[in-house]
Amino acid sequence: MRVHVVTKPIKDKALVDLKTSPLAPESFPVMPPIAGVQLATAEAGVHYTGRTDVLMATFDAGTTIAGVFTKSTMPGAPVIWCKQALADSQGQVRALVVKAGNANVFTAEDGMKACEAIAAVASDIVGCDASDIMLSATGVIGEKLPVDKVTAILPSMTPVADGWADAAQAILTTDTFPKGVTRQVQLGDATVTINGIAKGSGMIEPNMATMLAYVVTDATLPADVLDALLRETIEPSFNAITVDSDTSTSDTVLLMATGKADHAAITDASDPALTEFRQALQKVMTDLAHQIVRDGEGATKFITVSVTGATSDAAAKIVAKSIANSPLVKTAIAGEDANWGRVVMAIGKCGAEADPMKTLINFGGQPVTEAGRVRDGYDEALLNEHLKGSEIDLSVDLGVGNGQAIVWTCDLTHGYIEINADYRS
Amino acid sequence: MRVHVVTKPIKDKALVDLKTSPLAPESFPVMPPIAGVQLATAEAGVHYTGRTDVLMATFDAGTTIAGVFTKSTMPGAPVIWCKQALADSQGQVRALVVKAGNANVFTAEDGMKACEAIAAVASDIVGCDASDIMLSATGVIGEKLPVDKVTAILPSMTPVADGWADAAQAILTTDTFPKGVTRQVQLGDATVTINGIAKGSGMIEPNMATMLAYVVTDATLPADVLDALLRETIEPSFNAITVDSDTSTSDTVLLMATGKADHAAITDASDPALTEFRQALQKVMTDLAHQIVRDGEGATKFITVSVTGATSDAAAKIVAKSIANSPLVKTAIAGEDANWGRVVMAIGKCGAEADPMKTLINFGGQPVTEAGRVRDGYDEALLNEHLKGSEIDLSVDLGVGNGQAIVWTCDLTHGYIEINADYRS
Repeated sequence: MRVHVVTKPIKDKALVDLKTSPLAPESFPVMPPIAGVQLATAEAGVHYTGRTDVLMATFDAGTTIAGVFTKSTMPGAPVIWCKQALADSQGQVRALVVKAGNANVFTAEDGMKACEAIAAVASDIVGCDASDIMLSATGVIGEKLPVDKVTAILPSMTPVADGWADAAQAILTTDTFPKGVTRQVQLGDATVTINGIAKGSGMIEPNMATMLAYVVTDATLPADVLDALLRETIEPSFNAITVDSDTSTSDTVLLMATGKADHAAITDASDPALTEFRQALQKVMTDLAHQIVRDGEGATKFITVSVTGATSDAAAKIVAKSIANSPLVKTAIAGEDANWGRVVMAIGKCGAEADPMKTLINFGGQPVTEAGRVRDGYDEALLNEHLKGSEIDLSVDLGVGNGQAIVWTCDLTHGYIEINADYRS
Repeated sequence: MRVHVVTKPIKDKALVDLKTSPLAPESFPVMPPIAGVQLATAEAGVHYTGRTDVLMATFDAGTTIAGVFTKSTMPGAPVIWCKQALADSQGQVRALVVKAGNANVFTAEDGMKACEAIAAVASDIVGCDASDIMLSATGVIGEKLPVDKVTAILPSMTPVADGWADAAQAILTTDTFPKGVTRQVQLGDATVTINGIAKGSGMIEPNMATMLAYVVTDATLPADVLDALLRETIEPSFNAITVDSDTSTSDTVLLMATGKADHAAITDASDPALTEFRQALQKVMTDLAHQIVRDGEGATKFITVSVTGATSDAAAKIVAKSIANSPLVKTAIAGEDANWGRVVMAIGKCGAEADPMKTLINFGGQPVTEAGRVRDGYDEALLNEHLKGSEIDLSVDLGVGNGQAIVWTCDLTHGYIEINADYRS
């Protein structure tokens, strides 16, 4: 894979180089072009130097779109823009412009003015309405975006069909590797492709939305079907990850379909012809979400927290999130210490119904507890062996119902402190 | 002050010495005896060596008590014991036994058996019912308490009136300094004393309860009055602090009155004669809570988060806790970086009503925002100067109502990771 090094200009401090996460995939996937999509990247020189920081994706006429956004009460201007544009365009899209390094958040009317300026230039280039332009931004909050640098560079950018790897690179901030996934799947008579890219490594606990993620397919799907598929697949993917319990002001997931594939018309998300497609889409969404966790700031362990036997799926998710967000659980795993008592604490504190006598805790498939105590014959050596690996499985059965949930997170290490205490991101 | 060094036996690791928190008070207060209370400490040698780890406090007949406990669904056996004993004794108490180093949590029926054994020995010593004995334990979760070591040592312990400093020392775990406070105040015709001791430094986000804290007065107050005073003073003290958002299975605050002071009878918590006493009690409670934050694991900054202008006091507390628990805010302050955008994020993510255009953020009295953006003339140098200190004030006015709350926390540093990733506590 391309070695990706983030270099950040720090006030009063030297440039900081982040090492690639030890949990990074071995390579970036070979992502094929998708008919109807072209991608261009450039260096606008806002916040960063020596790296691309603007992505412009253009879509042929007829491309449909669905989106899900942060629930923050302090949303970034691009989030507000996208929600309005989605409504105005009735699910049509012709271009997406993403700026990395400046979130365009909390800059009052300047935020929306910047969106309008970028959308005006992009819509001129493409020849469409401004409401056909989708916008994202990610990076520092509260600094006015020098929008002229972005609008000046857009007309000179050269879109190419084969630009997925460069696109994945241009949207990163504190990420240490670009995130992409591709799948091909049968949809009726056609073989369709699904490509997805994402960014995110800190400020990660999406809430009905996520970090920035863009998934594009050449399938032919109306916007309302896309919307149903997006909401269905986001819950067990982006809404099931957490790095640090902090939810961004800018979380955005967009799903787009260019309609270039020739298959029988789909008018309803429940169409059985979608079976394989929705499975493939779920895999793309989950894979991207996992890649964000694998690039969690300072992460050295990828942790799967599975909760079963809760009173409801919602209760199971509360318990799983409580465990996954507990600093004491995350530091214990960082220290490769089978300190399962902290899991007991995390279950206990979240308020979901639980009974110590029925609670079964497993690490790496090794049962730890039974009947309200540590299990007879419990061998901590086996757990510690599991914890030395980089893929940690922690499962809890509460024994009080049938609810279940899986949440993914990473450990909490010195790396997180270094990245977040030592310079502004 | 006495230099306090925690030495912990670590599996496969050398003993770890924790340095005293840089936020520790300059000295432990001179705590006068309280008539009707005697204190004894000893080395039971459970989990620790070379330090005291058992406290036994005895109270003269007629001492009243009120208690508040963790809301965890996985409470320790001593918590369960205390709740039952409080009910059975109808607010009377004759002794308190605290064990540090083992929380006596999640050990099934062994947990309650250990409580029964300790209470049986203590009640023999004092000559009272077992339900007049209160118990606490703090330390590792899930390991069976070697109760014989505790019961064997209790009869040999020598209670003294002047044992408050030793008592504060014997109950510590990962704390780096003993925590105590004393006040004298007029109650009717009498001058009464209030002494309090506490422990706690990690797993700190009390929920209607706290870490271990014991407050004793010689005032003459019925148990129901004590209970009302405890619940009133705990909300803006122990329930307004957080170190790491993790709530313990063992949180306990007990308030005891020996009835040795000779003043007109108090039968109602609203008696105006209590005015000065309740103020003094509030100060004792708040001071102890602050000392716990000042000993927050790895803490280098004491942070006061004040929120005003929320739709309700409860909403203000949600916002204040969201800021105080945000790893990104806490690491930014650790790094002495005025990254106020992360405060925007933390306000936005918690769901409480907020409006960017009305949100005013202050650091150290320096206004940062106005009208939905950074303030004209904002001088980051002034903020950075404030952040270099060890007492950080962060205030937010939401401008959407009259609700307010104050929450205290500490920064998130490498020290927290070291303490919690590197050995079992």
